[in-house]
Amino acid sequence: MPPLSTARSAQGDNPGMDTVHIWGDNLRLLVEISATAAFALSGVMVAARKRLDAVGVCAVAFLSAFGGGTVRDLLLDQRPFFWVRHVELLWGVLLLALVAMLVLRQRHFELTEKAIFWPDALGLGLFTASGMHQALLSQMPGLVAVLMGLITGVLGGVLRDMVCNEIPTVLSDHRPYAVCAFAGGWVYLGIWHTQAPGWLALLSCLAVTAGLRALAIWKRWELPAWRT
Amino acid sequence: MPPLSTARSAQGDNPGMDTVHIWGDNLRLLVEISATAAFALSGVMVAARKRLDAVGVCAVAFLSAFGGGTVRDLLLDQRPFFWVRHVELLWGVLLLALVAMLVLRQRHFELTEKAIFWPDALGLGLFTASGMHQALLSQMPGLVAVLMGLITGVLGGVLRDMVCNEIPTVLSDHRPYAVCAFAGGWVYLGIWHTQAPGWLALLSCLAVTAGLRALAIWKRWELPAWRT
Amino acid sequence: MPPLSTARSAQGDNPGMDTVHIWGDNLRLLVEISATAAFALSGVMVAARKRLDAVGVCAVAFLSAFGGGTVRDLLLDQRPFFWVRHVELLWGVLLLALVAMLVLRQRHFELTEKAIFWPDALGLGLFTASGMHQALLSQMPGLVAVLMGLITGVLGGVLRDMVCNEIPTVLSDHRPYAVCAFAGGWVYLGIWHTQAPGWLALLSCLAVTAGLRALAIWKRWELPAWRT
Repeated sequence: MPPLSTARSAQGDNPGMDTVHIWGDNLRLLVEISATAAFALSGVMVAARKRLDAVGVCAVAFLSAFGGGTVRDLLLDQRPFFWVRHVELLWGVLLLALVAMLVLRQRHFELTEKAIFWPDALGLGLFTASGMHQALLSQMPGLVAVLMGLITGVLGGVLRDMVCNEIPTVLSDHRPYAVCAFAGGWVYLGIWHTQAPGWLALLSCLAVTAGLRALAIWKRWELPAWRT
Repeated sequence: MPPLSTARSAQGDNPGMDTVHIWGDNLRLLVEISATAAFALSGVMVAARKRLDAVGVCAVAFLSAFGGGTVRDLLLDQRPFFWVRHVELLWGVLLLALVAMLVLRQRHFELTEKAIFWPDALGLGLFTASGMHQALLSQMPGLVAVLMGLITGVLGGVLRDMVCNEIPTVLSDHRPYAVCAFAGGWVYLGIWHTQAPGWLALLSCLAVTAGLRALAIWKRWELPAWRT
Repeated sequence: MPPLSTARSAQGDNPGMDTVHIWGDNLRLLVEISATAAFALSGVMVAARKRLDAVGVCAVAFLSAFGGGTVRDLLLDQRPFFWVRHVELLWGVLLLALVAMLVLRQRHFELTEKAIFWPDALGLGLFTASGMHQALLSQMPGLVAVLMGLITGVLGGVLRDMVCNEIPTVLSDHRPYAVCAFAGGWVYLGIWHTQAPGWLALLSCLAVTAGLRALAIWKRWELPAWRT
């Protein structure tokens, strides 16, 4: 993790920072794995509903799972990418897509919106937190960090929808989605500023993001439409 | 502005270059702000016509406003991005999108093509000039610089249309658009080679680009179609 | 070619590597030129079928020809891009697009799938090999290198289709396409590991990729569909 040392030296006025704020490597890996798996699963499901072929299913799974994180690393100029450092993730998503295809084909599993909901909401929260973490490590200002969290969380899904030739649901379904990640990002930033441990910021961000999302669907909240 | 010093040292055979050719920081900031505002406005209008929700409007405004410049910085390997250096721009676009939504909703403003025209044409000219400026600072060869100007100017609009699930109008509406930016770019390059001051190149590029665009719409010029 | 020296020093345990594995600069340039021309041609043809205007045809030709390679260089952090190092390629594609438009317009050339097939298959094989080559030079692990080859080969076509507002044919036409590049990539990797000369790996990769693709079309192979 190269930016660690620069972060430490540049924030010398903030002595406990590197032990308190920064996630351990294990926590970080766990978050990346969970978020990647969650989004890969959502990608498989969307591709299945669009009746793409086997290659299409794998490709959409990869785009959903790695799109957000790759763009995050590209924007923050972080090399090597997290999927180059952890090639196991690539194998995992490939395997997950193949197994999911076999299982879903046999079980006549109902691909309702409900089935996609939890993987998607959890992935959103986890990736938002991971984007915040990286951006704050790279000394980004607050709003930029929140935007990076948002991009990391949302972009996998946007690319997934764009490749499937749909207006991304984020932009058009009048349900709060990006707004949840936006709120979660600010919560992360607030807790980070209080010098609380990193896992607390992570958990709060995850809870707020996924919780708001669940609440929004349950209560049928709608975003203000354009000229109702 | 880190590339400034390398540009200066690498072009030692061109002594007056750094005082003559390079825009002052104030001019550069002014151009970026105007172009960003113009494209953000065009993004809000397109999103409104597509009846996206509030988040969609903000997202399309951001994509239009920052898409071209971000890809330019990515291709030229310029960090930090201009919206990281000037976070005010992010707040500004957010504010502009919210205010525009409120105003447009109440006033029953007619969202004709005409209303979008001037913000779009000015943004195109300004971003083309800013892309040229950056690319020439990074020692790119002439044609590459013109392409960078073109990409910076056009890409925001292309991303805006792709996200709204349309064939980008640039490619399909048979009206000169990219061609205007292309011509403006060559004008910029020509004036730059004569060692004229930077603001002159900027103004000429802007005038040629926006002027050609206005002329094309006014005179109903059409690009040669494929097999008429 | 800056990564050459690092590759050499980092693989000191592999003495003959730099003379045996790495393509000469001439071979590399030849491959890039052929692949670029092939994909530019395929782009012109797709744009023609979509009846885009003159600018659209040029833009789609550029995207098809340079999209894959540019994303490869971006992901591998290779600057300057290959089209900045060899500006002639840009002029070439521009010329090719213009000439192709004139010729195709006059000759009433039938734009069947067949006409697009060979440029596309050859471009796929050549770009896959070039992506593998760059990724292995940058010390990427095996699977990542194969993915880079795949991305380099396939992405030009995906961007071409996305910009034309279609679900990329790669993902949906139930014909093996990406799978051919995937197989070709593993063949390249296998031969590279045996310390065979670079041109052998290139030729094998090209033969396997384009050959499999031709075989797939000829024998009407189909990928397993989702729930037949």
